[in-house]
Amino acid sequence: MPEDTTADKGRAYHTTSTGAALDTVTRHSKDEDITLFGSCFCPFVQRAWVVFEFLGIPYKVYEVDPYKKPKELLEVSPKGLVPGLRFNNVDPPRSLNESTVIMEFLEDLASETTRRSLLPPATNPYARALVRLQADHVNRNLVPAFYRFLQAQDTETQINTGKEFHQAIETLVGLFERAEREILGGGGVSGEGEQRALSKGLGLWIEGGELGWTDVMVAPWIYRAQLVLKHYRGFELPQTDRFNTWLRRLFTHQAFVATCSTDNLYLDSYERYAFNRPNTSQVANAINSGRGLP
Amino acid sequence: MPEDTTADKGRAYHTTSTGAALDTVTRHSKDEDITLFGSCFCPFVQRAWVVFEFLGIPYKVYEVDPYKKPKELLEVSPKGLVPGLRFNNVDPPRSLNESTVIMEFLEDLASETTRRSLLPPATNPYARALVRLQADHVNRNLVPAFYRFLQAQDTETQINTGKEFHQAIETLVGLFERAEREILGGGGVSGEGEQRALSKGLGLWIEGGELGWTDVMVAPWIYRAQLVLKHYRGFELPQTDRFNTWLRRLFTHQAFVATCSTDNLYLDSYERYAFNRPNTSQVANAINSGRGLP
Repeated sequence: MPEDTTADKGRAYHTTSTGAALDTVTRHSKDEDITLFGSCFCPFVQRAWVVFEFLGIPYKVYEVDPYKKPKELLEVSPKGLVPGLRFNNVDPPRSLNESTVIMEFLEDLASETTRRSLLPPATNPYARALVRLQADHVNRNLVPAFYRFLQAQDTETQINTGKEFHQAIETLVGLFERAEREILGGGGVSGEGEQRALSKGLGLWIEGGELGWTDVMVAPWIYRAQLVLKHYRGFELPQTDRFNTWLRRLFTHQAFVATCSTDNLYLDSYERYAFNRPNTSQVANAINSGRGLP
Repeated sequence: MPEDTTADKGRAYHTTSTGAALDTVTRHSKDEDITLFGSCFCPFVQRAWVVFEFLGIPYKVYEVDPYKKPKELLEVSPKGLVPGLRFNNVDPPRSLNESTVIMEFLEDLASETTRRSLLPPATNPYARALVRLQADHVNRNLVPAFYRFLQAQDTETQINTGKEFHQAIETLVGLFERAEREILGGGGVSGEGEQRALSKGLGLWIEGGELGWTDVMVAPWIYRAQLVLKHYRGFELPQTDRFNTWLRRLFTHQAFVATCSTDNLYLDSYERYAFNRPNTSQVANAINSGRGLP
């Protein structure tokens, strides 16, 4: 019998990763130049974490309870928001916040060290711009739409915000198709080598592509959509073959798998959002008050 | 006698640049590979325009009326938002939107062509990250705060939103000071040459600095604050010597001056925002409905 999801069971959020993510935390518990402060269910953290894994940059994980912030986190992030980075072997100490800023930093760092990249090559500024346009849509439309839908309590608002979230995904698919058509379908690509290099930067949407910038930007929310939004709101992602192929590539990519906990961790931790309990998070408060995300 | 600013005089917005900006439009009226679609009073357009000027990338300007969008604009930008870029000598045609995406594109393009840059060098990813942190604050906090303040109608809301806008500027100053302290004050800089290169990328806040990424991101709103918010709301920018020195360097920089119209153009065009007339703009509607900017 399916679980009744109409009543708040008062489940507690988790404070420690489980499953594959726990193995990764254990593997990254030794001191390194960079410490990643994270919370196990936070999608903004997962972005930064996937980038560390994919780009091959050494790091240590420090799992924190986002509702009982340790002093060390507040030194790195005055508002207590995760993800945060601390740079351990510099004096005076340095730190960094904001998931998108951290992603850009790690991309810049890798181009100087491991030589891996999530973006199309610098020699194709237009391809990079189309990827940045996708990421801009994810950050300014898709992510806020996810929370508005998850926190909506009355049926009418749930229907409307659900449609908006679905539309945000369709718009992203349209931007993927546009990049594919304009970059790989057009006349601007000179040879097979360049075609291959560009496919990689454009992401897993494309046959033969590699994990890309937008994949990482959006994956944590798509993952929670097929798990948390499905459970609490009966939400279904688009059902096309193309979309399902992209999902399968994304959710089985080693760098993403390495950062995923078991399903129950997300279902438990997001119950407070689904019933819009008071003081759920700074993100939840921003959505409730109609302000931009913190 | 000072003008009475408590009643809407029904002034019309402008559709054509004036002053130095008009000279620049005239100089850039010949066909080029890139056409910049812009509206003369729009701060998002001014960002892209300053970047073209600073990085030395050839362009043609196409001034459009944002309330009577021509067909050519809708082909470049389905929502009819400016700035938009059209690439004229490619088949199939290409275009680009969103001021921050356009800025990133022009920065990438210049690194391949004119070799100029608004960011700290790629060899210093942490310095670049601190600049991106400033830009993130401008986009997600300072810019929305500007419109909330300008559109606020009752006195209490004007006082509160005015304080928030002032606080957003103080936070930006704090981020400038942090970058200066951590990048130039710390031990990470090896010699005078590197110091000079980094000063440039960190912007005009610093003695001997050059126009930087954050300067361009924020300048259009600071310019409108000392003109439009002062006129309609009696707003005063911070009065410290340091802040005034930065303003003077910013507002007299050749790339910025080249994109500025005369004062009356801004005062006239923003009257509709100051009295929150219906259908003022997509930005104004987003602020009124508590959603993120379009």
